[in-house]
Amino acid sequence: MTVSDQPERVQAATLRPVAPGMEKHLDVYYPILDHGFIAVKDYMGDDGSVLSMARMSYGRGTKTVSDDRALLRYLMRHMHTSPFEGCVIKLHVKLPIFVMRQWVRHRTASLNEYSARYSMMPDEFYMPDAQHLAVQSTDNKQGRGATLSAEQADAVRALLEQDAKHAFASYHRLLNQDEDGTEIEPDTVGLARELARIGLPLSTYTQMYWQTNLHNLLHFLKLRADRHSQWEIRVYAEKILELLADWVPLTAEAFTDYQHQSAKLSRMDLELVRAMLAGKATIDDADQYGLSKREARELAETLGLMG
Amino acid sequence: MTVSDQPERVQAATLRPVAPGMEKHLDVYYPILDHGFIAVKDYMGDDGSVLSMARMSYGRGTKTVSDDRALLRYLMRHMHTSPFEGCVIKLHVKLPIFVMRQWVRHRTASLNEYSARYSMMPDEFYMPDAQHLAVQSTDNKQGRGATLSAEQADAVRALLEQDAKHAFASYHRLLNQDEDGTEIEPDTVGLARELARIGLPLSTYTQMYWQTNLHNLLHFLKLRADRHSQWEIRVYAEKILELLADWVPLTAEAFTDYQHQSAKLSRMDLELVRAMLAGKATIDDADQYGLSKREARELAETLGLMG
Amino acid sequence: MTVSDQPERVQAATLRPVAPGMEKHLDVYYPILDHGFIAVKDYMGDDGSVLSMARMSYGRGTKTVSDDRALLRYLMRHMHTSPFEGCVIKLHVKLPIFVMRQWVRHRTASLNEYSARYSMMPDEFYMPDAQHLAVQSTDNKQGRGATLSAEQADAVRALLEQDAKHAFASYHRLLNQDEDGTEIEPDTVGLARELARIGLPLSTYTQMYWQTNLHNLLHFLKLRADRHSQWEIRVYAEKILELLADWVPLTAEAFTDYQHQSAKLSRMDLELVRAMLAGKATIDDADQYGLSKREARELAETLGLMG
Amino acid sequence: MTVSDQPERVQAATLRPVAPGMEKHLDVYYPILDHGFIAVKDYMGDDGSVLSMARMSYGRGTKTVSDDRALLRYLMRHMHTSPFEGCVIKLHVKLPIFVMRQWVRHRTASLNEYSARYSMMPDEFYMPDAQHLAVQSTDNKQGRGATLSAEQADAVRALLEQDAKHAFASYHRLLNQDEDGTEIEPDTVGLARELARIGLPLSTYTQMYWQTNLHNLLHFLKLRADRHSQWEIRVYAEKILELLADWVPLTAEAFTDYQHQSAKLSRMDLELVRAMLAGKATIDDADQYGLSKREARELAETLGLMG
Repeated sequence: MTVSDQPERVQAATLRPVAPGMEKHLDVYYPILDHGFIAVKDYMGDDGSVLSMARMSYGRGTKTVSDDRALLRYLMRHMHTSPFEGCVIKLHVKLPIFVMRQWVRHRTASLNEYSARYSMMPDEFYMPDAQHLAVQSTDNKQGRGATLSAEQADAVRALLEQDAKHAFASYHRLLNQDEDGTEIEPDTVGLARELARIGLPLSTYTQMYWQTNLHNLLHFLKLRADRHSQWEIRVYAEKILELLADWVPLTAEAFTDYQHQSAKLSRMDLELVRAMLAGKATIDDADQYGLSKREARELAETLGLMG
Repeated sequence: MTVSDQPERVQAATLRPVAPGMEKHLDVYYPILDHGFIAVKDYMGDDGSVLSMARMSYGRGTKTVSDDRALLRYLMRHMHTSPFEGCVIKLHVKLPIFVMRQWVRHRTASLNEYSARYSMMPDEFYMPDAQHLAVQSTDNKQGRGATLSAEQADAVRALLEQDAKHAFASYHRLLNQDEDGTEIEPDTVGLARELARIGLPLSTYTQMYWQTNLHNLLHFLKLRADRHSQWEIRVYAEKILELLADWVPLTAEAFTDYQHQSAKLSRMDLELVRAMLAGKATIDDADQYGLSKREARELAETLGLMG
Repeated sequence: MTVSDQPERVQAATLRPVAPGMEKHLDVYYPILDHGFIAVKDYMGDDGSVLSMARMSYGRGTKTVSDDRALLRYLMRHMHTSPFEGCVIKLHVKLPIFVMRQWVRHRTASLNEYSARYSMMPDEFYMPDAQHLAVQSTDNKQGRGATLSAEQADAVRALLEQDAKHAFASYHRLLNQDEDGTEIEPDTVGLARELARIGLPLSTYTQMYWQTNLHNLLHFLKLRADRHSQWEIRVYAEKILELLADWVPLTAEAFTDYQHQSAKLSRMDLELVRAMLAGKATIDDADQYGLSKREARELAETLGLMG
Repeated sequence: MTVSDQPERVQAATLRPVAPGMEKHLDVYYPILDHGFIAVKDYMGDDGSVLSMARMSYGRGTKTVSDDRALLRYLMRHMHTSPFEGCVIKLHVKLPIFVMRQWVRHRTASLNEYSARYSMMPDEFYMPDAQHLAVQSTDNKQGRGATLSAEQADAVRALLEQDAKHAFASYHRLLNQDEDGTEIEPDTVGLARELARIGLPLSTYTQMYWQTNLHNLLHFLKLRADRHSQWEIRVYAEKILELLADWVPLTAEAFTDYQHQSAKLSRMDLELVRAMLAGKATIDDADQYGLSKREARELAETLGLMG
C-alpha cells in the first residue's frame, strides 16, 4: 500500500475531545530513513483526558488542585500511570524488518503488519547513509563507535546494495513474478510467497499499523529515544516525540522533566552524593561507597563532574 | 462526581473517523440498576478502522475482497482478532463493588476507580428489586433458581436495606463527617478514610473510567452478556451491546452470528452429530460417543432437540 | 479451604533449578493481619535462571562478564527486565476484600479467587489493632496521621466489630444456613449466595492463588512495600520481601540497591544538585531551579538535608 | 550458544509438584527443521496444579466433584481458563527469523532473544527440503499448493543456498571477522554488528528462551498447530504438543477433545444443522440459511458430508 492509496480524509463534527495540535498531523506521511515513514492515523484523548481520569479517582478531594499543569506534573512525578492510559495513538509505520524486530518487543500495543504470506514484498530495502556507518564500539558491546572513512563507507554501501538487489532479483525469480506482479516465465509455476521471502534481507522494508496508549508510548519513547538504542529505531522515536509535543503538550513537558531527562540514583549513589554535599567525600571516593568504576563514571556524568 | 459535574461538551471538527451512531451517545448517562450508570466518554475508530487495518496487512492481496461486510465477517469468523484492536471505547461506569470485583478480572483494559482513600464514599448502595431476588439454584452451584415469594422478598429487602443504612451511619460516625462533609462532633478527630470504609457493604456503589479495545470488549461481552453471568453485571453488558450496535454495526452483527450465538462442538459432539446426520445414531446414543449426561443435555439443547 | 485441607507435600527428585532457600517456605502458612496468611505454593527458577536467560541473549559476548553478581546487578541497574521474567512465584494469600481490591490492580499476574457465588464466605473479617487506628492525615490526602487515643480506638473497634458481626448474622439469615452449612429454618428457602453476600463488609476475608513473574513481583513490591501504600497491604508486601531474599538473594540485594532504595531525580533536581556540588546554589534556591515547594522538601529529604 | 555449552543438570530434591513425564525432557534438545531445536529448560506445575487452583475457587462447593479428570474436562469445556495459568513452561528454541517473527506475535509470553547487536550471528540458515517446496496456493492466498517438481525444487534450493551463503560471506567481510571471530584483514576496522547484520536473510537462525503459562500455550498451539499455519512454525508447535501430553496428560486430552478438534458453529450453521436433523433441509440449502459458499463447504467438511 502506497501513500496515495489512502482514502481522502474529510472533516466531520465530533463531540469527543479534539487535540488541535494533532489534527494537523493526521495522515501526513513523514519520511524516516530512506524509504520509511510515520503517519498518525487516529488518536483518542488529549491532556484534558488524562486530567479527567485522574479527577474522577480523586473525587471531591481534587477540588484543591485547581491547576491543570500542576496536577499533570504531579501524576507524572509520582508515577500515577493509569490516567495516561486514557489516551491512545494509532500510527502507520514503514520500517526495515530489523527495526520492526526491536519494535515488537514492546508487547503492550496492538499491531497489524503487512503479510508477506498474503502479498508480495515491494523491492525496498534500507541503505544506511555513509555518515551512519560506523565501526563496532569497543566500550559498548552493542553499539557503534567511530564513523567509517568515506572510502570504506563506499565499499560497505556498494556491498550492501548489490547483495540486497541480488536477493530481490532471486525473490522475483522464485515467485516467477516481477515487481508489478507480471509473470516472468510463462508456463512456469512460482514458489509460494511464504517460502520465496525467506531469502530477503533484514533490511527489507515492511509496514504496520501500531497502536498503543500514552502510558505505554512514553515507556517506548524512554527506551527508544535513548542514546543507547540503535540509531535506526531512534529516528522513529524522535519523530514520535515531536508529534507528542503537539498532541499532549503538558504531558510531553512533564515527560521530559520527570522521565526522559531524569536520572535514577542508586542507594550507593545517594549515600555518596549526601557525603559530597556534606563535604565529607568527593566523586573519587566512589569505590568506598560501593560504586563500580562504571557506576562512578556514569554518576560523575549525571552530576556534571566530567572534566 | 455527579453527572452534573461533567463539563459541557462542544462540537468540534476532526479529521479522524467519526462513528455517527456513537456520537449521539457521548456523555449520555444511561441508568443501570438503582443508582448505577454507563456513559460513553470517548471512542476511537469505527467499522472502517477495522477494515483499514486488515487491508493494510493483506496489501494488494485484498483487491479481490471488494465487499466491506464480507471482509468483516471473514475476520470475525476466522478469529483474525488484531484488526478489532484498532477501535477503542472509554466508558464511565457506576456500579456496586461486588460487580466491580467481577469486572476487574478482565485484565486487558485500562481503568481508574474512585478512591475511597482519597475521598468519602457517597451513601449509595444497591438494593435488588423483588423480582430479582431468587433462591440458590440447585443445578447451577453459582446461580439463581426460582424467584422468592413477595413476602420473603420484602423481608430480604428490609434486612439488606436496614443493614446497609446502618453501615453507612457507622461510616459517618467513624469519619466524624456527615454526607455533605460537615463535621459531626466538634473537637473530635475522624478515623482515616482508608480505615473507615472497611465496614461498608459490597453493595456500595463505586465508579470508574474503563477503557478497552474492541477485541477485548467483545470477549468481555461474550462472557458477561451470557446467561450464566450474574444478572447484576449482565445488565451492564447488555447496555454495552446496544451501544456496540450503534458504534460498529457490521462488527456487532458479525459478533452475534459468529461468536455470541455460535456454539462450540467438541470432538465427541461432532462425531455424534455426523452419525446422527448419517442416520446411524440418535441423541440417546450420546454416552457411546463419550458425552457425559450434562454434555448430552447441552448438545440436545444446542441442536434444538429438547422435548 | 483451611490450611489443614492442604495435601501433604512429599519430597521428590527434579532436574529443574532448585532454590534451597525457598524450599523451606513451601506450604508454610505465615499469618498476616488477624486472619490472613501468605504461603508459597510453587516457584520456578532462581538467581541462576535470570543469569542463564541473560547470557543466552548476549551469546559469546558475555564471556567477559565472569561474575554472576556483577551481571545480575548490571541487569537490574540498566532495567534489562526480561531475564527477571524467567522466574515465577505462586502464592496462596488470604486477605481482606479491601486489600484484594488494591492487589488486583496489578494486571500482569494470574489469579484465582475464592468464589462467593459458588461457596459460602467464612465468618472472618479484619479488625484493626488499636495501634493501627489513626486519624485522616492532613498533608497526605490518602493516608493516616496520628494514632487514635486508646479510648477512641476502643470505641472504633467496638463499632466495627459489632457491625461486621451483625452483617454476618444477616448473611446467614439470608442464606438460611449457619456457618457449618446447617439449615437454620426448616421449610424455608435461602437466598442465592451471589445475592446474600452483597451485604458483607469490605473487611471480609477472601483468598486467592496469585502468581506472577519476578519482574512483575518487583514492580508490585516497589509500589506496595512503599511507605505511601496502605499499611494493611504493606504487611503482605513486606512478608514477600522476606521470602524474596531467601529465594533469589542476588536479585533481592540488587533490587534494594537499584530500585527500592533508589531515588529518581528530575531534570530540575539534577540541575540544582549540580549547582550545589559546584558551590553555586543551596537547597534554598530550589524555586529558582523550577522545583515546587513539595519537590524541594522531598529532594532535601532524599539528600539528607532535613534539619 | 551451542547445546554443549549447557551446564550439566543435577538431580535435587524439591517439595514442589513434579511432573515425572516432563522431567525426562529437561534439557533434551529435540532437532526441528535443519538447524533448529526445542528444549524444555524449566516448568512449573502439573495437572494437579490446575485442579488445586480450581478447587480453591470453588471452596467447599467442589466436594461433590470427586473426579480429577471430570473436573479438568469441565474447566476446559467451559473455558474456565484461569486455573490453567497456574502452570508455566520455559523453552529454549532455535528457529529461523521468519518463524520467530510469527512467534513473537503471541504477546502474553516472556522471551529473551539472542542479540545480533551484542554477538555475531552463526552461519546457519534454513534450507527447505524439496518435499516442502510448493507453489503458491490458488484458493488460499496465504498458503502452499502442489509440491514442486524435483527438477524445479533443485533449482530453488540451489538459488536459496547460494544467496544465503553469499549473504553470510558479505556479513563476515563487513565485520572483518570470520566465523570463529578471527580478524580477516589486519589493520582494517569492522562495521558495527548492529549494521552488518542487516543484509542477512530472513532464513537466518536465531534463538530464544520463551516462557508462557499453560493457558497461553494452548492458545498458541490452537493457532500454530493448525493446518493453516505455515509448515515451518507448525513443526515446532507439533513438537510442543508431544511434550504437553507428557507434562499434563489430562489437560492435553481435554485440549484435544474440547479445543483442538472442536468446531465452532455459527448462528446460521446451527439453524441449518437443526433443520437437517429435523429432516427439513440438506446441506444444499445452505444459502437459504445465510451461509456463504465457503461457509457451506467448510460446514460440509466439519459434518463429514464431503463426497
